[in-house]
Amino acid sequence: MAYKEGPSGRRTAADFSVFLFVLATFVFSAVLVSAEGKEELAEQPQLSPQTRVCLGCHNRYTPGIVQDWLSSRHSRTVPAQAMLRPVLEKRITAEKLPESLSGFPVGCYECHSLNPSNHKDNFNHFGFKINVVVSPNDCNTCHPAEVNQYSDSKKAHAIKNLMSNPVYHTLVDNVTGVKKYDQGALITSKPSDSTLHESCLGCHGTKVEAIGSQTISTKIGEITVPKLANWPNTGVGRENPDGSLGACTACHPRHGFSIEVARKPYTCSQCHIEPDVPAWNVYEESKHGNIYSSKHHEWDFNAVPWKIGKDFKTPTCSTCHNSLVVSPQGDVIAERSHDFGSRLWVRLFGLIYSHPQPKSGNTSIIRNKDGLPMPVTFSGELASEYLIDKPEQDRRSDKMKNVCRACHGTDWVNRHFAKLDNTIKETNEMTLTATKLMSDAWQKGIEDKTNPFDEPIEQMWVKEWLFYANSVRYSSAMTGAPDYAGFKNGWWHLSNNLLNMKSAINIKSIIPAEKSEAK
Amino acid sequence: MAYKEGPSGRRTAADFSVFLFVLATFVFSAVLVSAEGKEELAEQPQLSPQTRVCLGCHNRYTPGIVQDWLSSRHSRTVPAQAMLRPVLEKRITAEKLPESLSGFPVGCYECHSLNPSNHKDNFNHFGFKINVVVSPNDCNTCHPAEVNQYSDSKKAHAIKNLMSNPVYHTLVDNVTGVKKYDQGALITSKPSDSTLHESCLGCHGTKVEAIGSQTISTKIGEITVPKLANWPNTGVGRENPDGSLGACTACHPRHGFSIEVARKPYTCSQCHIEPDVPAWNVYEESKHGNIYSSKHHEWDFNAVPWKIGKDFKTPTCSTCHNSLVVSPQGDVIAERSHDFGSRLWVRLFGLIYSHPQPKSGNTSIIRNKDGLPMPVTFSGELASEYLIDKPEQDRRSDKMKNVCRACHGTDWVNRHFAKLDNTIKETNEMTLTATKLMSDAWQKGIEDKTNPFDEPIEQMWVKEWLFYANSVRYSSAMTGAPDYAGFKNGWWHLSNNLLNMKSAINIKSIIPAEKSEAK
Amino acid sequence: MAYKEGPSGRRTAADFSVFLFVLATFVFSAVLVSAEGKEELAEQPQLSPQTRVCLGCHNRYTPGIVQDWLSSRHSRTVPAQAMLRPVLEKRITAEKLPESLSGFPVGCYECHSLNPSNHKDNFNHFGFKINVVVSPNDCNTCHPAEVNQYSDSKKAHAIKNLMSNPVYHTLVDNVTGVKKYDQGALITSKPSDSTLHESCLGCHGTKVEAIGSQTISTKIGEITVPKLANWPNTGVGRENPDGSLGACTACHPRHGFSIEVARKPYTCSQCHIEPDVPAWNVYEESKHGNIYSSKHHEWDFNAVPWKIGKDFKTPTCSTCHNSLVVSPQGDVIAERSHDFGSRLWVRLFGLIYSHPQPKSGNTSIIRNKDGLPMPVTFSGELASEYLIDKPEQDRRSDKMKNVCRACHGTDWVNRHFAKLDNTIKETNEMTLTATKLMSDAWQKGIEDKTNPFDEPIEQMWVKEWLFYANSVRYSSAMTGAPDYAGFKNGWWHLSNNLLNMKSAINIKSIIPAEKSEAK
Repeated sequence: MAYKEGPSGRRTAADFSVFLFVLATFVFSAVLVSAEGKEELAEQPQLSPQTRVCLGCHNRYTPGIVQDWLSSRHSRTVPAQAMLRPVLEKRITAEKLPESLSGFPVGCYECHSLNPSNHKDNFNHFGFKINVVVSPNDCNTCHPAEVNQYSDSKKAHAIKNLMSNPVYHTLVDNVTGVKKYDQGALITSKPSDSTLHESCLGCHGTKVEAIGSQTISTKIGEITVPKLANWPNTGVGRENPDGSLGACTACHPRHGFSIEVARKPYTCSQCHIEPDVPAWNVYEESKHGNIYSSKHHEWDFNAVPWKIGKDFKTPTCSTCHNSLVVSPQGDVIAERSHDFGSRLWVRLFGLIYSHPQPKSGNTSIIRNKDGLPMPVTFSGELASEYLIDKPEQDRRSDKMKNVCRACHGTDWVNRHFAKLDNTIKETNEMTLTATKLMSDAWQKGIEDKTNPFDEPIEQMWVKEWLFYANSVRYSSAMTGAPDYAGFKNGWWHLSNNLLNMKSAINIKSIIPAEKSEAK
Repeated sequence: MAYKEGPSGRRTAADFSVFLFVLATFVFSAVLVSAEGKEELAEQPQLSPQTRVCLGCHNRYTPGIVQDWLSSRHSRTVPAQAMLRPVLEKRITAEKLPESLSGFPVGCYECHSLNPSNHKDNFNHFGFKINVVVSPNDCNTCHPAEVNQYSDSKKAHAIKNLMSNPVYHTLVDNVTGVKKYDQGALITSKPSDSTLHESCLGCHGTKVEAIGSQTISTKIGEITVPKLANWPNTGVGRENPDGSLGACTACHPRHGFSIEVARKPYTCSQCHIEPDVPAWNVYEESKHGNIYSSKHHEWDFNAVPWKIGKDFKTPTCSTCHNSLVVSPQGDVIAERSHDFGSRLWVRLFGLIYSHPQPKSGNTSIIRNKDGLPMPVTFSGELASEYLIDKPEQDRRSDKMKNVCRACHGTDWVNRHFAKLDNTIKETNEMTLTATKLMSDAWQKGIEDKTNPFDEPIEQMWVKEWLFYANSVRYSSAMTGAPDYAGFKNGWWHLSNNLLNMKSAINIKSIIPAEKSEAK
Repeated sequence: MAYKEGPSGRRTAADFSVFLFVLATFVFSAVLVSAEGKEELAEQPQLSPQTRVCLGCHNRYTPGIVQDWLSSRHSRTVPAQAMLRPVLEKRITAEKLPESLSGFPVGCYECHSLNPSNHKDNFNHFGFKINVVVSPNDCNTCHPAEVNQYSDSKKAHAIKNLMSNPVYHTLVDNVTGVKKYDQGALITSKPSDSTLHESCLGCHGTKVEAIGSQTISTKIGEITVPKLANWPNTGVGRENPDGSLGACTACHPRHGFSIEVARKPYTCSQCHIEPDVPAWNVYEESKHGNIYSSKHHEWDFNAVPWKIGKDFKTPTCSTCHNSLVVSPQGDVIAERSHDFGSRLWVRLFGLIYSHPQPKSGNTSIIRNKDGLPMPVTFSGELASEYLIDKPEQDRRSDKMKNVCRACHGTDWVNRHFAKLDNTIKETNEMTLTATKLMSDAWQKGIEDKTNPFDEPIEQMWVKEWLFYANSVRYSSAMTGAPDYAGFKNGWWHLSNNLLNMKSAINIKSIIPAEKSEAK
């Protein structure tokens, strides 16, 4: 029971539902007839009766959601017919659909009612059993290949990979905890959930839990809805109330479920952005990004399969990393994958050195030679048993190069990646130099190695690998953002930062040690 | 008299005007007939005779201006007809128009000839009495509601709020004054007008004054025009030669008077940009910004009223802050206002702490408990009598939330703003910590509190609130730019800057004091 | 001989060529007939027989290149007909064409076979003599005016201007060389070619040399191709295997040869970007950039000539710097030039102070009063005999102002540039102050003047002129990016950096000198 009228009366949700159902049949039809433009639904297949009830109210109370859905392919697509498309054109991968879903377009109820027994966020909403959060396990009904690929990826494990790793967690705490100044010392508090949610966990995801119910005041009156902890959130590793991992909406946002949005680089850029992961910034400055910005208004971001040279002339993030890409003649150049590491052999993102990709999407299981949960030691030695081997690296790099070779000659491609190899080597060397300087500071008692993230020289060290070495490597990988690699966040800073670290050690070696920077 | 021919002859401006008038009638008609594309004027209403004269010359000598105007709604719109539109579709708010204006499209002369007796920049231009600067008081003829709302806003008072506030003025002087090095001391000069105009006052506006006339050499020969001090400028608080405040062209630039330009985020981004007011940067990285960038080519930025979900799918700056927004069914979700604070309850922009919006657009009248013209004290206490109270805060926040609720559920919206409340609290605490560190430096004699802006540790303090705390708050307010709040200009810097302040105090406490950093 | 089959057999390249020729005639025609959309070639002129052979294979093996070319004007244009266009509409400047080129559209073979005896990168490719690199000297066949203008420009000499200038070369070495920490000293290695190519020389260009041949494994089997040193690269000053200077593809990328791409600002932004040359960043924040971003979807970036106010409403980089611009009536406002300095009188880019443009595109010949290869001395004195004189400055500035005056009144334009003059003066003064501080550090023995780029205070000095003074000047030049000039990379940093330099000198003057920062 989830509906309360104001003081004047009482109805049961069931009563109200029947009323809504009848009303909606008329009201929403009328709405549709008056709809304009290409979202016109005149010829669209009949919606399910339940979805028509949803729309009856939500078209009035959250019209933006309804309009977003009306512009989506879901609102016009009957799954049973979608399954009949030629294999390269198929957008769903289920081999068999539940009968209840196959005959209507994919509307509100079709998604928000799935697997209710798994959903701790399920509630009685005007007589319907509704889940607040639609999870990857629900999308799995029609898109099992994508969900399966994603489930094994680093993205799906993004919370654990950050927060269950004591090293990285310490960095998180030092950066996002409120600091107070008391008797000459800076005291760092534990970060609030709220701040974590809008910084680190905005990208990594939160653990969304149903922790009871609550009555809220809305435009329709007071209603009772689940109370969800750590919500709203659309991080890629979100833990959902049904136990599944991930948020498809991170890249296919809200109720538009758009492949165009996911293929355009702005989506990836929400998290893969300077200073730590400057994929977007480098792309924007690169030749590929230049041509994208100049010409993408002529391209087709909705075509499936995606024809290289016809539908687009330069790659976006998804072209190289995960889309199904074919030649203009229809030959497959790269298979679709929602494991975004499947074409990656090296992990440019240095922790603290660049290294081969981890074998498992769950990286919190890694232990290096020093027993730390990191893919390399402080001196750069690889935790090889947790990282993919050379044959697997070659298999993955060949997948990526095959995309490049559609527009670039073989020699061009080979030399591009040879250059990247050298850059990985040199930037790792620069990080090692920074590590040695920090060790020097520790040995001289200038800073304290107990926590490697909470003092000024230590934070200079963090900038060396997390901002500058990463920036140079991303610049190298993406065919040309020379000013980014040079001055913006690259070699200028890599070098200047080392000079400044050395200078700080020199000065502080004759200054009495400060009180501990943090509790 | 404002026209001189070269050495070969002399004509009076009156003679020339008659000649122009006759010529223009033929010449400009011909021009229009040969015009191409959608700016075709064949069916457009007859222009006023004066405007046709203007166009006769300016189409040749400043063709870019004429073309810009030809693409505007003004060039095709007769005010008398514009007034007949249904109320929600109306773009003018005057209830009655001067007869001289109602019958012709809005051309050069219709705007540049208004209220000549108020205009110290009025001059005789080939026989016509022309104002150089068209001011809000002139626009008021057709758009009084907008001008009235604007006149009470902080924007209209942007010069005084900066330059008549001795605290902020001191900061301006320290940043933009040329520094010379003389006998071991840095001497800061008073900033030049020229530099102020293209830095602080480029956004805030200059005081434009008519200070005589001047003869200049142009393509048509020598002409005499007003000499204007502090011109050109399009800052939002510009003081105009007729005494009015503001520059409508700041957002509706030049002669296109475009609502599309004003609604797109690039306009606001000219001033609301990192590092001090990173509204644009945060928007661009947010989910709203991502969808805008990916999909806005399909939206309608010219429709009045603006239908949420139909004309656009995610908000731009103007959607949330000032546009008339309606549901697809035409129900008003938010009224139009050109007081850009009318839906704002809190001022995220910390001076030096975030605080409730000021009651008055003129903030130079504020006095805090310490007698300083600031909305808070150095320790964070509010100057409450100058700030809006809780009921007014609630009224305004409800206006904003009503926009959110068109696309997001009530619980979603409530929790979003609860998160913002916490962020305001935490970032204010971080600023307070920086303030305590600076006080410590003052007490130890490391820096001098007379001017709180002119020494290294003091400028670290400025960065804490002006760049980093502001960045975290903007990130929080705009549904998700987690990397901006984390690494870009947010928590990483908020924390790192405090460590560096403390370290600098520690070092400098044993170093002999420097000579004063500035005069 | 350049083709080897796998183990199963052997054919000569000649055999294979005949086979390809016959095959291509059928296969490629079929491909074209099935092509969709506006790239449809049904009505296009007959391609040369050689190009049809190229396409026979490359359409399969590098389809992205073929599709890019199919979308180009080259693929649809027969040079002999292009020469018949009215003079202002002409896109080629040759007065006479080789007969072999005039009758077919400009395809693969037409460009990649030119001047083979000059090309050390020429090789036998399945029976055809093919150049890998198409150089400006090849483009010269149809576009001699552009190549001639470009050859005299600073861009064409961009490698020498950086790498043959010992001062700048020292900066390059210090920034991009790997640093190791050994016994308390930072040791800087010579930069690797690979890193130079993707940082400094990514924009400036590399010296591409044919150093033999190599056999590589491709999709078609093993083939033998030239081995090119310092390849791939598209820097503006690239030295090509035929001895010519430049890479037209830097701005007209790959096989689309697009004038639209070159006219849009993203192209220039690849190199002219913050922090050292923030032309793009300033443009983006400026009023011009705002209107461009809001409205450019309605403009025509392919029209020749380019009609101000009709084809576009605000300038992009190329409008002001090099495009042929006419009035809507067809009067020439600015002539086309591919010498990008031809409308520039002052060089905003400070080395180390802003100064008049150099007379010669080759700036490595300049010697200042101190005998250094720089356009100014350390104290700001001009190397005047190498710089253009006042009359030439005036001629060039008038060319630029003539573009401005198409949309802005004469007084407006005059005052804009007067403001810029003052900004140049003030920012040069700020640089001089930084230079004096650095000299102070040298005199006090804090740092060593032998190399002015390799110590912390010296690098603060570099930031003063290379990042901050440049940013303020670019902001001033481009009608309004006040926040950029103020806070982003401008006056805030110009001032703050001087305070920090002085503070560092004060601290280090009582600290024992460090070991030399670099070898």
